Amino acid sequence: MKFSPFFLLVIAIVLSQSLFIIDAFKIPNRLNSISKSRDFKVKYFHQKVDHFSYSNNDTFEQRYLISTEHWQPDGPIWFYAGNEGDIFTFANNTGFMWDNAQDFHAMIIFMEHRYYGTSMPYGKKSLQNLSFSGYLTVEQALADYADFIADIKRTIVGAKKSPVIVIGGSYGGMLASWFRIKYPHLCVGALAASAPVLQFPGIYNCNGYSHIVTEDFKNYSPKCSQSIRQSWNAIRRIAKTDDGLKFLSNQFELCEQLTTQQLQSFIDWITDIWQTLPMIDYPNPSDFLAKLPAYPIKMVCQYLTEPDADDRQLIMNIAKGVSVYTNYSGNTECNQISENNDRLGISAWSFQACTEMVLPLCTNGVNDMFEPEPWIFNDFSDDCRERYAVGSERYKALIMFGGKHIGHTATNIIFSNGLRDPWSAGGILETLSDTLIAIKIPGACHHEDLRSQGPNDPKVLLKAREQELEIIRGWLQTYYNDNQIEFKF
Amino acid sequence: MKFSPFFLLVIAIVLSQSLFIIDAFKIPNRLNSISKSRDFKVKYFHQKVDHFSYSNNDTFEQRYLISTEHWQPDGPIWFYAGNEGDIFTFANNTGFMWDNAQDFHAMIIFMEHRYYGTSMPYGKKSLQNLSFSGYLTVEQALADYADFIADIKRTIVGAKKSPVIVIGGSYGGMLASWFRIKYPHLCVGALAASAPVLQFPGIYNCNGYSHIVTEDFKNYSPKCSQSIRQSWNAIRRIAKTDDGLKFLSNQFELCEQLTTQQLQSFIDWITDIWQTLPMIDYPNPSDFLAKLPAYPIKMVCQYLTEPDADDRQLIMNIAKGVSVYTNYSGNTECNQISENNDRLGISAWSFQACTEMVLPLCTNGVNDMFEPEPWIFNDFSDDCRERYAVGSERYKALIMFGGKHIGHTATNIIFSNGLRDPWSAGGILETLSDTLIAIKIPGACHHEDLRSQGPNDPKVLLKAREQELEIIRGWLQTYYNDNQIEFKF
Repeated sequence: MKFSPFFLLVIAIVLSQSLFIIDAFKIPNRLNSISKSRDFKVKYFHQKVDHFSYSNNDTFEQRYLISTEHWQPDGPIWFYAGNEGDIFTFANNTGFMWDNAQDFHAMIIFMEHRYYGTSMPYGKKSLQNLSFSGYLTVEQALADYADFIADIKRTIVGAKKSPVIVIGGSYGGMLASWFRIKYPHLCVGALAASAPVLQFPGIYNCNGYSHIVTEDFKNYSPKCSQSIRQSWNAIRRIAKTDDGLKFLSNQFELCEQLTTQQLQSFIDWITDIWQTLPMIDYPNPSDFLAKLPAYPIKMVCQYLTEPDADDRQLIMNIAKGVSVYTNYSGNTECNQISENNDRLGISAWSFQACTEMVLPLCTNGVNDMFEPEPWIFNDFSDDCRERYAVGSERYKALIMFGGKHIGHTATNIIFSNGLRDPWSAGGILETLSDTLIAIKIPGACHHEDLRSQGPNDPKVLLKAREQELEIIRGWLQTYYNDNQIEFKF
Repeated sequence: MKFSPFFLLVIAIVLSQSLFIIDAFKIPNRLNSISKSRDFKVKYFHQKVDHFSYSNNDTFEQRYLISTEHWQPDGPIWFYAGNEGDIFTFANNTGFMWDNAQDFHAMIIFMEHRYYGTSMPYGKKSLQNLSFSGYLTVEQALADYADFIADIKRTIVGAKKSPVIVIGGSYGGMLASWFRIKYPHLCVGALAASAPVLQFPGIYNCNGYSHIVTEDFKNYSPKCSQSIRQSWNAIRRIAKTDDGLKFLSNQFELCEQLTTQQLQSFIDWITDIWQTLPMIDYPNPSDFLAKLPAYPIKMVCQYLTEPDADDRQLIMNIAKGVSVYTNYSGNTECNQISENNDRLGISAWSFQACTEMVLPLCTNGVNDMFEPEPWIFNDFSDDCRERYAVGSERYKALIMFGGKHIGHTATNIIFSNGLRDPWSAGGILETLSDTLIAIKIPGACHHEDLRSQGPNDPKVLLKAREQELEIIRGWLQTYYNDNQIEFKF
């Protein structure tokens, strides 16, 4: 089996959001019209490269954003466990924290994950080879946060007794929940939004993601998912002639003329767009990944009403659907299908996804609308070894973090999932104990609850946020009571 | 402040037992007259050197002993978390497991700690310099055990559902409790015997150890501790003349004539013996560290009845007391006061005690019977840096394992402590919750409960072992019930 770039790409795009970091950073957050002011400082923490051995005693400067605007001594610290991207991306897209900090008199901290943004342990060489990139692991990232939190509590006057709430979305949600499990003495609870902590080999059906993607399109209209399902063979038939390749290039506004050799990449590129949209099918217009209307899939599906049209007509419709994603702004001149976003030559998240964060993802064409593509661990690992000189770890995430057994002794974790988010397939959807609470949000997408409140937010989403705040309030109250600290919020 | 070799030495001897590993291994265990047969195999596990980064992908062969003699499929696995020594030492001195495995149909495993015994990641070079020795950390050791346990459960037929109980004494007890905290999905509970998990900078009174040592002598007779207290000045007065040095050399049967320059080492050597005896003041004769009678301190104190005798008489008595430790067998020709036991040039435990396992130990001459010797973190760390090119970590053990906050979310740990054991000063002596149980054993010494039942064992010790077995039985029963597994024991 070939190493499908598509799988890694989807993971890279969907989970890492690494492609749209810069946009999110540059563009003023137009959606946060009701959000409160965002007054923060950018600081750096002197961090160990290796927390677990003494063979490498290098250090680096780890970036974090801190806002003490609403904080009062002994007040809580809301700590965002930065995930795979520039920390500003997460600060800009986690309005939940900014919206509610004042009510809790909370300090806000967003800490950048090692090997992302400016927090590169070895500067531009950081991802060059294993002697530099090798320290990019989940355990090191969690230990970064532990050392930092302990330091903050020692050094900020009035923070010694401040209870810490760890918050994160997507991979950041995994980090938040795992931090609570591994370092329960350093935080009182965690909000893990859209964290696919069960999406590991051996305990996860690799088709789960693609199935939800398909349902998301189908729920707007069965003809919509059916059109996509029929499109693959149509594309392959059309691509058999030079004229057909030209037709495809024109319809999809490709920057370069499509060749037979590129056909698979082309199909992967479209697949990738369909696999990505359900994550961000938000109720409010968004300019996060690209400028998008509210509920972009709904608009896509307005074009996909004729699954049984002839090949060229079907593909013309598909191309219109794709353009919702690629050119809703009207400013895109043409589309590049090649993977040209990886400016460092090796993407940090791809490295993580190849080594520890092995998240199986497959399609079968039966439960989903895609061409079948199996997921075979050994093949995946072999290809990773070829790319990074190190194979994939089949069991590590489960051995380290427990997988399905996460509930054995853990307490005080909220696992929230939007049920239209394809990553919810790997999430914890059932409450495990009195204090390990699953919050399912019908209709919501990828960590939608962490976004600022928007004008079109449905009631279930508002209610979920309220519930999360209520639970966090309870954890804090218990902490203050147990430690006989007078603190009103 | 000078770097007192005494402190490290005491830690090395007392906690690591590294000095008497070879004796314990070679000498048949005469005390275990009632223990059941010990039928086991020696095996090796292919282990990663570095679990937390990919910059070093070396592996090594980690030794373990396994006994399946009494085990039945689905039956429990009793896993001894090897500590700082050859694994046979612990297999030979943890008769509790051998005595009781049959009743539980338990598999017994003793796994050797990395960098001890034959489990050297880089052979003879392992402790040569930081690039080899740097992987000697607690986190790596715990991850060794995690990978191994996961592997055993995957590969031994019938072990997939076997509940694991982690057991350890001293530093091994710390490892056992921390393993349960960090990897609760891989074991159902831990028996942490004589584990000084609170003996870290910032939360521990460094005088605790020496105070209990002193009480142990005083409880046999106040004149006994008073004699030792008076002896230091007497030694220093006598040592002022050549004749006095000769007298001391003769009385203590030193192999080499004592010099003025060696006076401090000589005092440290005696101090070390007094600091060590209370750990092993067992009710049965022992030939563990040296051939010793039952209750050796009692015999020492029979000589120390005249604290106010003149200097020479007092020292003659002290020398007789020392000889209980150094020459009860009558076979010792002469005594070496120099630290000549460190055959590797760098002791693995000293490295651990210098880096992560920083256990403050001081004397003040007020609450204890020793010459005052303060413990100052920065001085300690500076000296460690000089020896190992890496300083001490003031906060790491607390950040990693929680210190006093160990009880926040942990469950199913027994913390047992013999109350005459000086290490109990750093142990958990009060029950923290329904499932974090402190068992205090009046009169018992260092992990005496883990030793085989002996003819003189007092009732409180027998009762403590029974209580431990009862609690373990309860954990197992709960596991079998929760998982609907039929298993009778």
